[in-house]
Amino acid sequence: MDGPVPPHPSQARGEPPDGAEPRRHPTGSNEQPAAGFSRRRLLGALGIGTAGVLAGGAAGGALGRATADPAPAGAPAAATDPVPFTGEHQAGIVTPAQDRLHFVALDVTTDSRDELIQLLRDWTAAARRMTAGQDAGPGGAVPDGAYDVPQDTGEAIGLPPAGLTITVGFGPTLFTSADGVDRFGLAARRPGPLVELPAFPGDQIDPAISGGDLCIQACANDPQVAVHAIRNLVRLGAGVVSVRWSQLGFGRTSSTSTGQATPRNLFGFKDGTDNLKAENASTLERFVWVGDEDAEGGRAAWLRGGSYLVARRIRMLIEPWDSSTLNEQEATIGRAKGSGAPLGQREEFDPVDFTARVDGEFAIPETSHVFLAHPTNAGTAILRRGYSFVDGTDGLGRLDAGLFFIAFQRDPATGFVQVQRNLRTDAMNEYVRHTSSAVFACPPGVRDDADWWGRALFEG
Amino acid sequence: MDGPVPPHPSQARGEPPDGAEPRRHPTGSNEQPAAGFSRRRLLGALGIGTAGVLAGGAAGGALGRATADPAPAGAPAAATDPVPFTGEHQAGIVTPAQDRLHFVALDVTTDSRDELIQLLRDWTAAARRMTAGQDAGPGGAVPDGAYDVPQDTGEAIGLPPAGLTITVGFGPTLFTSADGVDRFGLAARRPGPLVELPAFPGDQIDPAISGGDLCIQACANDPQVAVHAIRNLVRLGAGVVSVRWSQLGFGRTSSTSTGQATPRNLFGFKDGTDNLKAENASTLERFVWVGDEDAEGGRAAWLRGGSYLVARRIRMLIEPWDSSTLNEQEATIGRAKGSGAPLGQREEFDPVDFTARVDGEFAIPETSHVFLAHPTNAGTAILRRGYSFVDGTDGLGRLDAGLFFIAFQRDPATGFVQVQRNLRTDAMNEYVRHTSSAVFACPPGVRDDADWWGRALFEG
Ligand code: HEM
Ligand code: HEM
Repeated sequence: MDGPVPPHPSQARGEPPDGAEPRRHPTGSNEQPAAGFSRRRLLGALGIGTAGVLAGGAAGGALGRATADPAPAGAPAAATDPVPFTGEHQAGIVTPAQDRLHFVALDVTTDSRDELIQLLRDWTAAARRMTAGQDAGPGGAVPDGAYDVPQDTGEAIGLPPAGLTITVGFGPTLFTSADGVDRFGLAARRPGPLVELPAFPGDQIDPAISGGDLCIQACANDPQVAVHAIRNLVRLGAGVVSVRWSQLGFGRTSSTSTGQATPRNLFGFKDGTDNLKAENASTLERFVWVGDEDAEGGRAAWLRGGSYLVARRIRMLIEPWDSSTLNEQEATIGRAKGSGAPLGQREEFDPVDFTARVDGEFAIPETSHVFLAHPTNAGTAILRRGYSFVDGTDGLGRLDAGLFFIAFQRDPATGFVQVQRNLRTDAMNEYVRHTSSAVFACPPGVRDDADWWGRALFEG
Repeated sequence: MDGPVPPHPSQARGEPPDGAEPRRHPTGSNEQPAAGFSRRRLLGALGIGTAGVLAGGAAGGALGRATADPAPAGAPAAATDPVPFTGEHQAGIVTPAQDRLHFVALDVTTDSRDELIQLLRDWTAAARRMTAGQDAGPGGAVPDGAYDVPQDTGEAIGLPPAGLTITVGFGPTLFTSADGVDRFGLAARRPGPLVELPAFPGDQIDPAISGGDLCIQACANDPQVAVHAIRNLVRLGAGVVSVRWSQLGFGRTSSTSTGQATPRNLFGFKDGTDNLKAENASTLERFVWVGDEDAEGGRAAWLRGGSYLVARRIRMLIEPWDSSTLNEQEATIGRAKGSGAPLGQREEFDPVDFTARVDGEFAIPETSHVFLAHPTNAGTAILRRGYSFVDGTDGLGRLDAGLFFIAFQRDPATGFVQVQRNLRTDAMNEYVRHTSSAVFACPPGVRDDADWWGRALFEG
């Protein structure tokens, strides 16, 4: 003991990321800390242990802000500008989060590998055009021949690119069907981490809005541009894929770049403050991008430079939240509602300090969302890129609203699953219900004009 | 006959509005024209007959553009600015259509007239604040006392007013329940025109998303601002009202001011070109605002300066539309897809001319939407203020997308109902399905600080 601070039962929940081992699976993360470990000393130790990894020297500091790399290429200058489509990674992951989302999960309805490949080629061509602000097909929305079917549906005529990104992912069932069939000769290339997510306590998952063979995430600063992109890709997929479920998001709930203001979620709190940020390339390599070490002897080599997308539709129980006190709300999150500052601090980007006390009590309760989700306690980090939604009513006179949570990570097991397991004592659980679940492997970026989404998977 | 133009069977569908009779009901509108009536002559006659009423001297001209009054007060200078809350009329009707919508229909769950009145007072106070960019309640989102429940949910902290308008309406069932009960002592004040809409051929109405005792339409240029407004009003209504259904709209599909660019709907066509426009006060008096003549001997006097809101959720059958030719699409609408010009003309705002011919045929087919909806053929005019929606999928692998149609009119019978009846031969019917229906009487504007929504109804 180095002082009067009592041992804190949750100090050792999760373990700090360890620079020597890139992907960690949750093991014994529920053990009690050794007696005599102080909150301060533990965090000090983590601070040292994670400095190189989390790129934040201060114990519990804001991830990725301390030693930021130069701004990444591709950050758009204005909300109407295009975001480059080609590159090492797909856009729509660490590129600045746009304001609006249209997400769709699809099932492949053909048995033909060739038809699937042709669709991925067609999608790539159309996405290349649309992200540049062009029509989906070269014939355009208003073809020269009056008896031609338009190659674009037209509702985005005259609209700027609006930062449109289109991000594609492959679900576990694309590789092996639920009954074990190798549908398209891809089973031997399914990466080990690409499995359906486990069940979590409290889950109320609706299978009808979960899973999917493929996903397309379209983000833009104009919803009409995002909807137009999905609609034209779905149209190209007629006879090959069918829409399984889809989700509109009206407002981003995270920042993915230090240049972005932090938006507020439907609980009224700033969301995304301590998110992984695009400016910190080394943290992204560590936690977001699939690396050389993940090749699994070549099996998953096609995914290098890609990432895993986890989607969870989380209903937020607006009514009980809205009738709780400010104190209850702030204790639930672990941050101040107004400023977004960690409890016990003053400014939004002040480092989180779990040892800070107010009136003798720890300022940040150990059941708070931030306490449990923070890398020092969760032992890992994820890139959040979610959106608020309102989907009508629930039949009980209440708005059906919440967060369409999207996270990108190098491995779902050491990313979302590990954090979500650590959130089992989260005070926020009283106010949220997870109603859908899906996971997709997002291939790396399209490199050049000859490349297409998934080429390395099908041809590599 | 004054030339070789053959008689056109649809020339006399509907009759021209007649300046002498403010509200007309559809009567015998399906009769054939007298032999010898030419398209040109009929339209010429209508042009004269409607010049004073439609404020457009040219036959079939763009309504309300020819003799525009000066720009109305209250048009915001920027998309972030506030729109004045008080005034002769409620904002959100002829004020410039904002980009995003959150619409909610509610049922009153209390039997207490006093509780209902108190809620309308509370809503008025909160709307007054929120439309000015303030928190819903004076205590704000971050109350001084940590053990206070916040008076605002907080997700709009830091956001500008974003042109927010909040428009309230009273449904038929607020006055008399379906089984004839005078619920709140209002039955004697129910205006004659406030009855549920009739059924139309092809309707596929879902009662669960139709009707409602009350409605709130929140429009803003930022969806978070619109959602925040509805959510806080719903919150204030706890125990008094319950949400019956709600609809988000992501993109406006009409202009209501000559200063606004015409947006495109999900069929890819410009929508709102020939809408009633705010600049034309005399046309609005004629077709949108309930007037002195509508008082019904005092029964409906409280509604003077108000308007009727008709809402129809219209599913658009995207897939067949997207596989039809340009020619078929343009013949269905009656306008060019690229420019938005009436067929046979060059520019979007060129007057519609139903006598124009291309290769010997009428350029605008008599089954086109514009032909049938145009005032010269529908015999009336409405103010459209709808929004595009995407509500997930339909269980058959298709996007559930369409138009949340909102129209304002002086009388539903001579407004929406008359136009919709005239659309029974509309070629567009093949591509649309009406899935919800509702009608509300929107009281006039809140006049001053002592006034509240519906005061004249309850106290007048
Ligand atoms: C509706 C559900 C949720 C809400 C309203 C919510 C809200 C928040 C808020 C307000 C913050 C603090 C600001 C920030 O640093 O971004 C935060 C942080 C965080 N959340 Fe959530 N969250 C939700 C669900 C989740 C889930 C399901 C996960 C992952 C399993 C998660 C992981 C995180 C992480 C990793 C942080 C950063 C913690 C830190 O480093 O301090 N959240 N969340
Ligand atoms: C999904 C359904 C609908 C679509 C896609 C649609 C689309 C259009 C388009 C593209 C125009 C031409 C541009 C303009 O002047 O605004 C138009 C005009 C119009 N529509 Fe619709 N419309 C729909 C439903 C309705 C309904 C239900 C009504 C009323 C019952 C209606 C009434 C009108 C009127 C009055 C005009 C103006 C015609 C003129 O004065 O030339 N529309 N609509």
